[in-house]
Amino acid sequence: MSTNVLRTADGWWAVRHARAVRVATEAVTTAELLADRDAVRAAAASGEPGTPVADLAALSPVTTPCRVVAQMVNYRSHARDSGFTGDIPPAFFRKASGSVSGPGEAIVRPPHVRFLDYEIELGLVMGAPLPVGTVVEEGDLPSYVAALVITNDISAREVQLTKTQFYESKSYPTFTPTGPYLSLLEPEEFARLLDLRLKLSVNGEPRQDRTLADMIVRPARALTLLARFQTLDAGDLLLTGTPGGTALKAPPKAVEKIGALLPPAVKWKAFFKSQARNPHYLHPGDVITATIATPDGRIDLGEQRTPVADAKQDPR
Amino acid sequence: MSTNVLRTADGWWAVRHARAVRVATEAVTTAELLADRDAVRAAAASGEPGTPVADLAALSPVTTPCRVVAQMVNYRSHARDSGFTGDIPPAFFRKASGSVSGPGEAIVRPPHVRFLDYEIELGLVMGAPLPVGTVVEEGDLPSYVAALVITNDISAREVQLTKTQFYESKSYPTFTPTGPYLSLLEPEEFARLLDLRLKLSVNGEPRQDRTLADMIVRPARALTLLARFQTLDAGDLLLTGTPGGTALKAPPKAVEKIGALLPPAVKWKAFFKSQARNPHYLHPGDVITATIATPDGRIDLGEQRTPVADAKQDPR
Repeated sequence: MSTNVLRTADGWWAVRHARAVRVATEAVTTAELLADRDAVRAAAASGEPGTPVADLAALSPVTTPCRVVAQMVNYRSHARDSGFTGDIPPAFFRKASGSVSGPGEAIVRPPHVRFLDYEIELGLVMGAPLPVGTVVEEGDLPSYVAALVITNDISAREVQLTKTQFYESKSYPTFTPTGPYLSLLEPEEFARLLDLRLKLSVNGEPRQDRTLADMIVRPARALTLLARFQTLDAGDLLLTGTPGGTALKAPPKAVEKIGALLPPAVKWKAFFKSQARNPHYLHPGDVITATIATPDGRIDLGEQRTPVADAKQDPR
Repeated sequence: MSTNVLRTADGWWAVRHARAVRVATEAVTTAELLADRDAVRAAAASGEPGTPVADLAALSPVTTPCRVVAQMVNYRSHARDSGFTGDIPPAFFRKASGSVSGPGEAIVRPPHVRFLDYEIELGLVMGAPLPVGTVVEEGDLPSYVAALVITNDISAREVQLTKTQFYESKSYPTFTPTGPYLSLLEPEEFARLLDLRLKLSVNGEPRQDRTLADMIVRPARALTLLARFQTLDAGDLLLTGTPGGTALKAPPKAVEKIGALLPPAVKWKAFFKSQARNPHYLHPGDVITATIATPDGRIDLGEQRTPVADAKQDPR
C-alpha cells in the first residue's frame, strides 16, 4: 500500500490514519528523502501512536529549487474547454520552482492580475535520473517515478494568453500549491493510475472532477517525449495537465476565427471584456479544495486547502 | 577595461591579447568564479606570458545547472521578420540548461528536425541575486549583472511553431552554444551596452548584423519585468533576444490571415511545405560564426565557431 509522507519545518513524517510518525532521517531535500525510503517505511510500520496530522503545519513536500515541468492541454475535457479540435501536439512548458508553495498557504494574486484561474493536476515526483534519450514503457514507471502529489497550476489568464508563452503567467510566487502528501507508491500500484480521480472545488462548489482515464498523453509516454530533449533528476516535478472545468472557456469557434483577423491587442481586449462577466475566476477570500484519490482510498494524496489573497502592494 | 575569462576542463583563465593566464581560484561553478573576481583581476594584471588561447579547448564559461531564461521577440528587426505589428507584449520563456554547450562544440540536429535555425543573442550573466519585486534602474545594472557572453538560441522551428510553447524547440542538448568568453564589465562600461554589435554568419555568409540600439526591452527593464514573478541567482543566464536575419521569415500578412482560418495542422503543413524551399536553415556540415563587440573592441566577447552535425541515431 502507498505510504504518505508529510513535511514540516522540522522534518518529515509518515502518515497513517490521520496520525503522523516522525521519520528518522537526515534528509533535507525531497531527493534525499526519496533516497532514504527505508527510514520512511520504518516510521510507517513503527506502530507508534504519533501526532494528529491536524496539529502539523504541512509545507510543500517537494523542496525547491527543482525542475518544474508541465504538460500543456492533456485532458480531452480541458481540450474542449480550450477550443482545441483535431490533434493536439503534446507540448511542455516550465514553471519557475519559486512558484511552489505549501498545501495550506495562501495563493497571492498579483495587483495587475484580474483573471486568476485554478488547474488541479497530478504531480509526478521523480525518484531517479531520466537521461536524454530514455524510452519509458508503462512497466518502467516505478523505476523513474517515486511518488505522486497534488498540485494546482495557478494561471494569470490575461498574462498567459497575451504573452503566448505560459512561463510568466504560471510562475508567480504561490502559483504552484503542492501537497499535502508525497504519496510513495509500491511498484504494483502504478497499474492503478487511471483510477485516480481529481476533484477541485471553490468555496465548496465543484468545478473539476475527472479521472486520469480522460488523460491524452499518459505518464510513461510523457516521460519518453520529455526525454527527447531534456534530463530530469530525483526530486524534480512533472505536472501532467488539468481536466475540464477551469474558469477559462475558449470563445465559440466562429468568434475565434473572426478574432484571428483582428490585431492581437484588439482581439484580447474584446475577449477579456467578455471574461469580466465570467464569475468563475478566483477572488481574494475564495478557498480552493483539491483532492486526488482512487475510489477505494488505497491511493489518497490528501486534501489541499488554499485560500486566495491579494498582494499587499504592487511588487513592480 | 572589461576582463575576458575562459573556462577549460582544468580551470579558469584570464585572457588578454590572445594569451591566457591561469586564474588561481578554487571556483568550480560560474557563480563561484564571479565571487572570486579578485583572483581574475590578479591573473589579468600578472604580466605572465601565459598560454596562446588557440591552444586551449574552451568550454561554456557558464556552468550548469543554472536558470536559462530568454526574452521573446526583442529586436525591432526580428519582430518584422516574425510578422509582428503593433505592440509586442514583453514575454519570457525558459530553456533547459542541459542545452548549454561549448563555443566550439557541434550543434546536434535531432533526427526529427528539418528546420533548424540560429539566433545570436547577448547573454547576461547574473552576479548577484535578483529577488522578486526588484526594480532595476539603468544605473543599478552593475549591481546585478556581472558579465556578458555570446549565446546562440538554436531553434527547431517546426517544433516551436506547432507546439506554440518554445520550451522543447530550444532545449535539446547543444541548442545553447555559449562563450567563448565571460566578459566581466567594469561598472562604467554598462553605459556602452547599446554600442555592442551582434554578427552571425553561416559558412562565411553574413546573416545577422545589428547593434543593441535595435533592442526593444533593454536589460534594466527586462530584469525589472522578470523580477515581477521570479528570482535569479548569481551564475544564472538571461538571453536578451535576437535581431533580424534568422532563416525563419513569417509569411506575408494576407497569407497569415487566411492561415488563421485553417485548422492548425493544415496551416502548418502548408507553411513548412513553403519553408522547404528556404535555403537558410542549418544543415550538417554548416559552420556558424558569431561575434559580439563594440566597434573600438574595448568590449569584445570573442568569436564562437560551431559546426552543425546530425545525431548519430534517433534518441526517441
